[in-house]
Amino acid sequence: MERLSRTPRLDNPDSDALRREILDYFNTTFDRYEQLFEVLTSDEAYFVKPIALRHPLIFYYGHTATFFINKLLLAGLIEERINPRFESIFAVGVDEMSWDDLNDDHYDWPAPAEVKTYRKQVRQTLDRIIRTAPLTSPIHWDHPWWTILMGIEHERIHLETSSVLIRQHDLKYVQSHPAWPVCRDSGPAPANQLIDIPAGSVTLGKARDDAHYGWDNEYGLRQIELKALQAAQMLVSNQEFRAFVDAGGYRDARWWSEEGWDWRNFAAAEHPSFWVRTNDDWQLRLMCEQVCMPWDWPVEVNYHEAEAFCRWKAEQTGLPIRLPSEDEWYRLYDLSNVAEPSPGHSVNANLHLDHFASPCPVYRFAQGDFYDLSGNVWQWTQTPIYPFEGFAVHPCYDDFTTPTFDERHNLIKGGSWISCGNESLRTARYAFRRHFFQHAGFRYVAGAPPTAIPDSRYESDELASQYAEFHYGDEHFGVANFPQTLARLAISACGSEHNGKALDLGCATGRASFELARHFTAVDGVDFSARLIDLGVQLQQQGRLRYTLQEEGELISYHERDLASLGLADVANRVQFSQGDACNLKPLLTGYDLILAANLIDRLYSPRRFLSQVHTRLNPGGVLIIASPYTWLEEHTPKEEWLGGIKRDGENVTTLDGLHEALDAHFELIRGPEEVPFVIRETRRKFQHTLSEVTCWRLKD
Amino acid sequence: MERLSRTPRLDNPDSDALRREILDYFNTTFDRYEQLFEVLTSDEAYFVKPIALRHPLIFYYGHTATFFINKLLLAGLIEERINPRFESIFAVGVDEMSWDDLNDDHYDWPAPAEVKTYRKQVRQTLDRIIRTAPLTSPIHWDHPWWTILMGIEHERIHLETSSVLIRQHDLKYVQSHPAWPVCRDSGPAPANQLIDIPAGSVTLGKARDDAHYGWDNEYGLRQIELKALQAAQMLVSNQEFRAFVDAGGYRDARWWSEEGWDWRNFAAAEHPSFWVRTNDDWQLRLMCEQVCMPWDWPVEVNYHEAEAFCRWKAEQTGLPIRLPSEDEWYRLYDLSNVAEPSPGHSVNANLHLDHFASPCPVYRFAQGDFYDLSGNVWQWTQTPIYPFEGFAVHPCYDDFTTPTFDERHNLIKGGSWISCGNESLRTARYAFRRHFFQHAGFRYVAGAPPTAIPDSRYESDELASQYAEFHYGDEHFGVANFPQTLARLAISACGSEHNGKALDLGCATGRASFELARHFTAVDGVDFSARLIDLGVQLQQQGRLRYTLQEEGELISYHERDLASLGLADVANRVQFSQGDACNLKPLLTGYDLILAANLIDRLYSPRRFLSQVHTRLNPGGVLIIASPYTWLEEHTPKEEWLGGIKRDGENVTTLDGLHEALDAHFELIRGPEEVPFVIRETRRKFQHTLSEVTCWRLKD
Repeated sequence: MERLSRTPRLDNPDSDALRREILDYFNTTFDRYEQLFEVLTSDEAYFVKPIALRHPLIFYYGHTATFFINKLLLAGLIEERINPRFESIFAVGVDEMSWDDLNDDHYDWPAPAEVKTYRKQVRQTLDRIIRTAPLTSPIHWDHPWWTILMGIEHERIHLETSSVLIRQHDLKYVQSHPAWPVCRDSGPAPANQLIDIPAGSVTLGKARDDAHYGWDNEYGLRQIELKALQAAQMLVSNQEFRAFVDAGGYRDARWWSEEGWDWRNFAAAEHPSFWVRTNDDWQLRLMCEQVCMPWDWPVEVNYHEAEAFCRWKAEQTGLPIRLPSEDEWYRLYDLSNVAEPSPGHSVNANLHLDHFASPCPVYRFAQGDFYDLSGNVWQWTQTPIYPFEGFAVHPCYDDFTTPTFDERHNLIKGGSWISCGNESLRTARYAFRRHFFQHAGFRYVAGAPPTAIPDSRYESDELASQYAEFHYGDEHFGVANFPQTLARLAISACGSEHNGKALDLGCATGRASFELARHFTAVDGVDFSARLIDLGVQLQQQGRLRYTLQEEGELISYHERDLASLGLADVANRVQFSQGDACNLKPLLTGYDLILAANLIDRLYSPRRFLSQVHTRLNPGGVLIIASPYTWLEEHTPKEEWLGGIKRDGENVTTLDGLHEALDAHFELIRGPEEVPFVIRETRRKFQHTLSEVTCWRLKD
Repeated sequence: MERLSRTPRLDNPDSDALRREILDYFNTTFDRYEQLFEVLTSDEAYFVKPIALRHPLIFYYGHTATFFINKLLLAGLIEERINPRFESIFAVGVDEMSWDDLNDDHYDWPAPAEVKTYRKQVRQTLDRIIRTAPLTSPIHWDHPWWTILMGIEHERIHLETSSVLIRQHDLKYVQSHPAWPVCRDSGPAPANQLIDIPAGSVTLGKARDDAHYGWDNEYGLRQIELKALQAAQMLVSNQEFRAFVDAGGYRDARWWSEEGWDWRNFAAAEHPSFWVRTNDDWQLRLMCEQVCMPWDWPVEVNYHEAEAFCRWKAEQTGLPIRLPSEDEWYRLYDLSNVAEPSPGHSVNANLHLDHFASPCPVYRFAQGDFYDLSGNVWQWTQTPIYPFEGFAVHPCYDDFTTPTFDERHNLIKGGSWISCGNESLRTARYAFRRHFFQHAGFRYVAGAPPTAIPDSRYESDELASQYAEFHYGDEHFGVANFPQTLARLAISACGSEHNGKALDLGCATGRASFELARHFTAVDGVDFSARLIDLGVQLQQQGRLRYTLQEEGELISYHERDLASLGLADVANRVQFSQGDACNLKPLLTGYDLILAANLIDRLYSPRRFLSQVHTRLNPGGVLIIASPYTWLEEHTPKEEWLGGIKRDGENVTTLDGLHEALDAHFELIRGPEEVPFVIRETRRKFQHTLSEVTCWRLKD
């Protein structure tokens, strides 16, 4: 096949040359996408859905063009829409997640010829922009032209995903096409074997100044040490997988995860999806035709099928057979010195449409000791996609990756015969739902379970994420971080000689606990809400915390905070978080030099019960710090339990009066009352701005 | 009778003499109160309630002593309670309003002898304090000793109100007592007559530097011109009132207000409360005995009965007979040169216990052309109590008056035979619920309806009072007044040549409307909420606005704002407030040079409908200003109506984008977006701090 243009280096100092290269990259991509739809046999083929939960192909035909327009509008490279109606119809609906948008009643699809005309208009617009818009090299993440590359790489992704949909279409809607020649080699598969891989380290993540375009999730850094393991030399072939099918693997829940078994039952799957049983024989559905089963080609399955095979294989062999982690895939890739596609050369892999418009035998492309570490079909990993350290969303495409940080989308690596552009690079990182089909199979490894990966989720619970920002996020209106301020005040009140144990009661997401750990040798962070404590625990265990914040209406932003940049990495392990009720504390929680009760007392069901015993938990000379805006609400505290803010016997009783009543027997007030402000961000423009009254009490001897 | 000490001048520069006078004032008051309870015949008399909705007399016996302790504690004159249990029992429950506290189960009354002992302890304490506490003259409102006078005057009030309760007690519980000699003069009453009063002015209100103690509601200033009227020479006597009773006045709803008729039916009243029918004759219940009806004594009735009599009398005479206003009472008082009680002389009035422990004939004490403008019995006015300009609550007794600013407590004037101390002064101002009985009757006048009095109410609705403070109150965190800032910005955007009509849409309590009136010749203030507009209207009509704010828990503070001190008195009449729906405005609202929509669009059910027609309401070159934090909530605006803060066709649409979409056809953006902050106070320590995005749009030609 004619070599398809490679994703360009964006740091070419010759901006005219760079402009020409991008123009070529755009046009060849646009052409190739047009060619894909030429395999369809009729207009009807555009309108009948290949699978129920996704749009018909007409959507995908228009979508990649509309995407250019939307992103260039955002970047200010164009001013006006070309066809607002089409650009509404073709804008969203790529992913199965949007199944509620897929009701056909909502759509009045235009004819393919109309879309072809629209695509032509878009091409002319892009052609003009690329030829004429000002361009300074290099093109980086914030550069307006980044969106042009984004559009091209986006179309290359859809070149692949649409080829999968076409492969799922009824045969009558597709035809062979000279631009899409399949591999004709097939035969029995050689036996697979495990190859020893020594322990070693890998580095993942794309540098911010990398010369090639990248998607948001690729950037950042992860370095990790891996133990020795064994890895299969080849991808699992149809033949190797057949043993599992023949052994009744699809009918035995033992091999499947719960989620996988649910899928199997829902889909009534009996064998790989593209396998077709014909009179006791097997055929394989390719993109445009059905062929006798090429047993030595890689089997194409979803994650659940791959995982079930591994469990079965492990029992068969007595070896710890499993899917690799993303880290492990990189280890194999790096050890084998796999080359990325480059201009002017065919790549040594069934990749980038350099060789076939189909898979090929699993022993065709040797890369080091292995075959097909890159290319042929994607390889499932057991790793749900997660952000690397330093992850940030691109402002022009904030939902490219973030919706997949849900522990339900697993990474696939290596690319397939049709993966091109960014997809063909080492740093490429794509993830799909575990039950999805792509041109994807798997390679197994044998070894101990891999290192756990960081939690990928963004905390999105409104209260929890507001608290996370309150404790670890930006300051607003010049108001200093509240838990940090209180912790400093507490440390100063205790003095250097009292630095034993501290209790942060009502610790919420834990900032004050960590700050106290700078001074105290041990800090207990206790809160009633497990939900909030979890964020502190997450920060402690993983060093970072991610959450979303509401910006305006339903628009959100993504935030990451880490202990290291707060200067807390070294002391965080002095903190012990636990759930507890301040009105009924465990006897264990005692012997403190400090008890901090920040924004706590007006949320307790019985603040008096707490205050009546708190002296028993302090060491001699210990300090109790109470901070509260005294926002008494009956939903938290029955009125008869309010410490103050009441009329008693006709006279005003303030909460400060109530604190004196409750504490004077055992404590002397050594500092305060003073007002310490805090700000909680609700949206980009809406904040709670509150004054907390702080009093410091020392236990009398 | 022995003359009871007068309320002392508090500006005596000889502080030793002042101290001695206060000691005497305290002791004689305490003694006289003790004497009152000597008319009770048994301990049982202390425990049986004279009327169902008020405490038994034991409460009142202890209450005045406890009151001293509570107030002196507040003032820091004493440090500790004398008897915490008693001081809880005797603290509150004076007013019928507290009927829910009157369940006897809540109380375990001590024996009268115990209370007598307690009173002795209190007296010793007060005696010591008055003898020894530091004293600098003069004693003013903020002086710690003010609370001593407060306690004494408080006891003098209860001397009177307890005498009413005793009068309502069963006869078997009371006995005559030499310290309480009644008047024995009675006979037929002379015919009443109307006396002409020329038009003239009166001045009400006590100066802040007045030499005598005063209650909070007495201070301030009111000057008013009164029209000519006629006033009855004498109080209405039992005889004059009898004609109404005999005419079936208590059975004819025509004469009664709705509220009065409800009371009559509830009470099944057939005649004045203290009248007793015996064998076709009438007797009158006095404090300690029942006597043949003294027909020439003043009738004692509540407000409803007095009002009904006047309506009946008006029909009888064809004259505009009615109750006087408070202003009118002062006009008569001033014209008649009534003298206040002074030391060393008996007052020329049945007042201050100088003459009788009962009423006396209505023609006994002539004062100018009238009788009994002061003394004998209180005189109901048609004026509900309201605060004068400059009113402020006293911090040591913030619920003395404020609970009566509810349009349900009418002023009584002139004092009765037992009114002494502060009660006997011209400036005295007491108000009771209209159905209450005191030693009170009435004088009628004939004339056109009096000038309406200012609204006395404090806005206490949480939202409305927060808005009042937001618009007219204090600034917080250094954030400038928001509606004022917007109005200035609007005036600057319009320029001096555009100063015709302005529309303040979503005007709430109206501050921006008033501020715009500094520049525009006419301003329409329109809001959906009649509740909020009402506050603007109140400010416009009365020049002032009063509201309460939450401080901490149930504790509140009282606030008054006026147009004059905001510099808005001269322009306020340019504003016209009306209720309206921004999504469906009346056609009349058009021809504006400015439309200001502040914090409006994200509270509309269809902001697009508003924006689609707003250009039709502006003059050529007119300016539209939109300010909003874009806090879209489905409770206000269905999501499909949100202007922005949404994902549309996969892309982020901000509200600013949505504004451009809605407005660009008719407007050009001439200023902004810029963020203008505002702060809304929720409690003393809790605030909403928000950024409103402001954009200014000029109508295209």
